[in-house]
Amino acid sequence: MMSTLRQDPTTNEWVILAPERGARPLAVQPDRLSTSPHDPTCPFCPGNENLTPPEIDRRPAQGGWQIRVFPNLFPALSPDGSTERRGEPCAREMEGVGRHEVIVESPLHDERLEDMPVDRLATVLQVWRDRYRALIAEPWAKAVVVFKNFGPRAGTSLVHPHSQILATPVVPPDTLHRYAVATRYHDDTGRCVYLDLIEREIESRERLVAERSAFVAVAPFAATLPYETWIAPRTRQPSFGQVRDEELAELADILRDVVAGLRRAAGDPDYNLVVQSAPVTEESKPFFMWHLRVLPRLVTPAGFELGSGMSINLVPPERAAEEIRAALARTPAR
Amino acid sequence: MMSTLRQDPTTNEWVILAPERGARPLAVQPDRLSTSPHDPTCPFCPGNENLTPPEIDRRPAQGGWQIRVFPNLFPALSPDGSTERRGEPCAREMEGVGRHEVIVESPLHDERLEDMPVDRLATVLQVWRDRYRALIAEPWAKAVVVFKNFGPRAGTSLVHPHSQILATPVVPPDTLHRYAVATRYHDDTGRCVYLDLIEREIESRERLVAERSAFVAVAPFAATLPYETWIAPRTRQPSFGQVRDEELAELADILRDVVAGLRRAAGDPDYNLVVQSAPVTEESKPFFMWHLRVLPRLVTPAGFELGSGMSINLVPPERAAEEIRAALARTPAR
Repeated sequence: MMSTLRQDPTTNEWVILAPERGARPLAVQPDRLSTSPHDPTCPFCPGNENLTPPEIDRRPAQGGWQIRVFPNLFPALSPDGSTERRGEPCAREMEGVGRHEVIVESPLHDERLEDMPVDRLATVLQVWRDRYRALIAEPWAKAVVVFKNFGPRAGTSLVHPHSQILATPVVPPDTLHRYAVATRYHDDTGRCVYLDLIEREIESRERLVAERSAFVAVAPFAATLPYETWIAPRTRQPSFGQVRDEELAELADILRDVVAGLRRAAGDPDYNLVVQSAPVTEESKPFFMWHLRVLPRLVTPAGFELGSGMSINLVPPERAAEEIRAALARTPAR
Repeated sequence: MMSTLRQDPTTNEWVILAPERGARPLAVQPDRLSTSPHDPTCPFCPGNENLTPPEIDRRPAQGGWQIRVFPNLFPALSPDGSTERRGEPCAREMEGVGRHEVIVESPLHDERLEDMPVDRLATVLQVWRDRYRALIAEPWAKAVVVFKNFGPRAGTSLVHPHSQILATPVVPPDTLHRYAVATRYHDDTGRCVYLDLIEREIESRERLVAERSAFVAVAPFAATLPYETWIAPRTRQPSFGQVRDEELAELADILRDVVAGLRRAAGDPDYNLVVQSAPVTEESKPFFMWHLRVLPRLVTPAGFELGSGMSINLVPPERAAEEIRAALARTPAR
């Protein structure tokens, strides 16, 4: 059975109703980490390739593979169906059209992102970008969200290193809102809000976490979460699909530093990675800038946050940046 | 030290930076429930009144009190300061002006909301409304958020039954957005989106959880969470401050039913209660309708939800409503 998208008439936001995803094997609380490089019961481990849906992409390694991509076995969205809206304006719905893919990042069951060699992590990021490019070409695609859940507090259900990608037939509320704000800013000032912000952060250095020739990592001025960090290009690149092959090693390198620094500075928290990119039809416009958000899951949002959309952050970003920098200075990640 | 509000230039949303709240006594994971009606170490239990800041309100009971209200000892916002915005447009900040209060709902350490006699719960709701009315009168107040966190997965830090109220000097993003959508709907149709929705739900009965003469409880058409339920008045009442004394017993009664039904139907989950109300300057307009949202915390939002603002809900609201109704039919809450 296909999932359904429904629009809340009081927010105009679409929600994915996916009852069959309830069949996911989640009876036990997932582990956070494994101490074994191979688990014969893990569907993502080498030898169990037949337990996953057919491959979409594979990057070979000596004697096997280093990365595999396949459709999620319990997809939130699936490609066959119609995006025609049905129902009254107060009860709009449509079929759950989209794509939901899994990227297994390593054959090693217990490998952590920050411990991967830079070239292998660069290949993971290349696969993210390649799938991003492939999915924005779908005629119904309005946004493509690349994300990773590390640890149960970040919503993971399987410990084997993997990330996911969801292509949606509507523009998600956050993407819509961020894009509208960036468009307004550009209309007001003639400039890109992200470039202005990055320039400012490079100059002040207060919230700078790491920098490379093409990328910076900063703790955002109004961080919503303790130790939240954004990685962004230093020059105009609205869409994640525009990242160039020759930039991938550097992007992998700065991402490793941020995740390794976070692990040491903040007590090894669970975290999410999310790529924010322009809506797929707006990639040529100068308003937006893709960025990769590192979101540590140290706190539980409570009623105030859920009811207002406002965050209370206990760790100033200046302190977070300083602590991550200090952790990296003590023992460099590389 | 006062907290600070900072605006993210990429979303225009204000974040509360409250480093001193990090001093909260949260070293151990809080319990979910107590089995004892009195805990001598609990700052909210009778006999420990001197451990809390001075009272703002108290409702007496034989030999003591049934409800106490006082400022949060670790406030996210506090009343003295200026709401003047400082800094460049890309780095706006202001002092953390506002009020943050605690409402202790019962002298009994282990009492659950759905087990309270209706008249006592009605008094709790009366205190919510009275504090709401008092706080919207503050000259800087733009919104007043009443909420309750039940259980550690809902962000609670103390097990003793209590709720909280935060008055903010900016309109929170969710309030702003919901109000804009309701205004647009009214402009398009001449009607209130909430009244249209409630009428529709009463007629179809598919998602109706409970009803009384002045209130309904429904599983929203595009529920973002499994077993999410909204309680709303049946006739126009934009602001929570407009609830009348004679309606409080019925509101308490329907809230008890919803919480008791949720407990039995969904395996006794942690949950938040949040009152959504019109922005304080818009209470006389016919666009909005206050509603109380019951938000069960059965699932962990993952990277997709954090990065897109979109939800994936595994339980259709029709099924949730049916299960809660069935649970109440088996053993009525009263």
